[in-house]
Amino acid sequence: MTVGLTLLRIPAPPLFSFTLLAVNAEIIAVGSELLTPFRADTNSLYLTEQLNLLGVEVVHKSVVGDDLKRLSATAEHALFRSAVVIFTGGLGPTEDDLTREAVAAALGVGLHRDEAVLSGLAQRFAARGWKMSPNNAKQADVLEGATVLPNPNGTAPGQWICGTFLGGQHIVILLPGPPHELRALFESECRDRLRTQLPPAFIATRVLKVAMLGESFVDARVSPIYKRYSEVRTTILAGAGEIELHFKSRAPSMDAAQARVDEVADAVEEELDDAVYSRNGEALEQIVGYWLQMRNATLAVAESCTGGLLAERITQVGGSSRYFLGGAVVYSNALKTELAGVPTDMIHRHGAVSREVAAALAEGIRYRCEATHGIGITGIAGPSGGTPQKPVGLVFHALASDGGTEVVERNFVGDRKRIRRFASTLALDMLRKELM
Amino acid sequence: MTVGLTLLRIPAPPLFSFTLLAVNAEIIAVGSELLTPFRADTNSLYLTEQLNLLGVEVVHKSVVGDDLKRLSATAEHALFRSAVVIFTGGLGPTEDDLTREAVAAALGVGLHRDEAVLSGLAQRFAARGWKMSPNNAKQADVLEGATVLPNPNGTAPGQWICGTFLGGQHIVILLPGPPHELRALFESECRDRLRTQLPPAFIATRVLKVAMLGESFVDARVSPIYKRYSEVRTTILAGAGEIELHFKSRAPSMDAAQARVDEVADAVEEELDDAVYSRNGEALEQIVGYWLQMRNATLAVAESCTGGLLAERITQVGGSSRYFLGGAVVYSNALKTELAGVPTDMIHRHGAVSREVAAALAEGIRYRCEATHGIGITGIAGPSGGTPQKPVGLVFHALASDGGTEVVERNFVGDRKRIRRFASTLALDMLRKELM
Repeated sequence: MTVGLTLLRIPAPPLFSFTLLAVNAEIIAVGSELLTPFRADTNSLYLTEQLNLLGVEVVHKSVVGDDLKRLSATAEHALFRSAVVIFTGGLGPTEDDLTREAVAAALGVGLHRDEAVLSGLAQRFAARGWKMSPNNAKQADVLEGATVLPNPNGTAPGQWICGTFLGGQHIVILLPGPPHELRALFESECRDRLRTQLPPAFIATRVLKVAMLGESFVDARVSPIYKRYSEVRTTILAGAGEIELHFKSRAPSMDAAQARVDEVADAVEEELDDAVYSRNGEALEQIVGYWLQMRNATLAVAESCTGGLLAERITQVGGSSRYFLGGAVVYSNALKTELAGVPTDMIHRHGAVSREVAAALAEGIRYRCEATHGIGITGIAGPSGGTPQKPVGLVFHALASDGGTEVVERNFVGDRKRIRRFASTLALDMLRKELM
Repeated sequence: MTVGLTLLRIPAPPLFSFTLLAVNAEIIAVGSELLTPFRADTNSLYLTEQLNLLGVEVVHKSVVGDDLKRLSATAEHALFRSAVVIFTGGLGPTEDDLTREAVAAALGVGLHRDEAVLSGLAQRFAARGWKMSPNNAKQADVLEGATVLPNPNGTAPGQWICGTFLGGQHIVILLPGPPHELRALFESECRDRLRTQLPPAFIATRVLKVAMLGESFVDARVSPIYKRYSEVRTTILAGAGEIELHFKSRAPSMDAAQARVDEVADAVEEELDDAVYSRNGEALEQIVGYWLQMRNATLAVAESCTGGLLAERITQVGGSSRYFLGGAVVYSNALKTELAGVPTDMIHRHGAVSREVAAALAEGIRYRCEATHGIGITGIAGPSGGTPQKPVGLVFHALASDGGTEVVERNFVGDRKRIRRFASTLALDMLRKELM
């Protein structure tokens, strides 16, 4: 395993000397479980992010089962297409773990059992008081010419091999499938190695996040701006009530790349004004938390149709107890009165789903919890419970503060999950705007 | 579009006459956005489930960008490997939508502009009062010999073509990328067509779900059982506190297939006893809801470290207002007293994270909400807030009912999200066992 460390200290000359030309990569996820309806390959999302930051474009992804012939054929196709080929999974001790054999066949190199890796495996088992079963030894099989990448979080080490294969210069990397092993190994063993082997890449990114505007509305407003910047790639991603704008640019220096993404991001932010809640990728829950702390304020919530989702989102943020006191989930009418102090006759007069009850929930929970801000949500998440006057998707959101109570009524479209998500996002965004 | 309907009425003879031999399929997801760090292909999970039920195995999945050469090369590789090839995405009106052209090139057939599809598109736009821009016309380009699959949810129709290509018999299907369009189109246009073209397949499935047991523990207990049944494929999937066991079998008749999966599922269920909470794939929240309704019982919850997650999970189930009254999220100590009636001196004496406070939360919220069952959760979700005596991951779960109050203490391993998920699952499972 010292081979790897030596290589890092005395970097090899870059394999790809064509400066600033994009290098192509592909990712092959190995494992029959990834060909079932139950498991998607998510490692490739992480790897794509990492490779993009190194100036490498991912041009193809495959999922292949534990089948030697299919796997080596896929490896060959990949080597014809792309300079960097990364395999994930199939490095374990079982008969189904065939990545080593398949890659060796595709590259036309042999495998040898590495004594250092083998004794490391034996030690690992011994340290836990376990006996190493013989099948584990195959995890010490190393591709001829490859560097072993130590895996502190699992038994199967990664492998790194670069050179000329199938008529082209290639970097081939074998990584274990479990995400936490793969990530740790990529960060400790692959990132710097790739950097020394690839043309220098200066890639800057920015993420803006926008709440409660439609995707087509946002695109119509901002596409005249981002289309002016051909050197910046803009991606728009839409979820329930939240839109992300990703900007990425590659330039001959980091300063130049950063200046480019900042220019377009700033122009887009100016156009969208206070709808932009996050300038560096933070979640809405985090931003609201920052503002509450900055204002030395506290929050309590009373939720009906969101059923705890708003509180759950707020408390996803570590340290949220500094500003979030808590609140009530008031599904039944009796609890709207008992926990949030909504007058019984108000519910009878206006119905539980009404502007008045939303306001009373916000004011009641604020008073009850002695918070500086109170949020109340009441609505019809469906699928049943709607009427012509009050259809599924109708939600009232109220925010009570020192200056008074604001209520926003909306008709959301979608299923139960989407309506609840929308409602919690709108309430958080009301609070954000109030705190600004 | 009548072509498709005619074909359905007069089914063609089966393309694959080799009865009961598994047919292989692969899925090619098209779109550069699927090669970014932000979007994973999930359509293939749905398609895999559907294909598996028709007796078709998915042996390869690919993701390719909007690049004509790469796309047609990938299509050719797929046609060499698999009898059924499904493309998703790349059927829209923009220059980047190249699936039609690429598949035509790979199959060696032409494309013609279909007048019926074109006028359907024009009508669709006219009905909304929009003018159809000229680029939309390319969505009417149809592969020579293909059947058009009408798409009621979008502008781009699907296509179906079967015959001998690249030396083998093939079914090639082009489906739109948006999941709701793809699903509706697969169900209305593809499922029956595939059934008539494929050897008859009788595949039965069963799913058992287990709470709060470790994956290796479950596997050690049940692998001696499922390994006896070579005709049933068993898959074990583990999440935070929940394990799913999937059983699948293919047999010459549906009764035989069902009998096989039932036999192994029943044997496994007997071995795991009451740890099995679901015999047909229902979520734990649903099962608890069934039991509460069956017992004519109601529930209220008081959550500290789970911050609303438990209430949110319970209310994900439509109609949960029939048995779930609501509860309190008591993040601050003051609210533990104010909303759930925990005595102040108890918190001082034992700390907010203690067996006593968990029990008082459960009892207090049960009393306050007049529920038949009360749940209290208090713990340390992290990442900060732990001490040597009360480390991150320590959670107390209490269930108060007529017969008294039960408290379970656990030390969960993992991050904030995982600890909160574990704690809410354990609490739900305590209630399930009590109701049984």
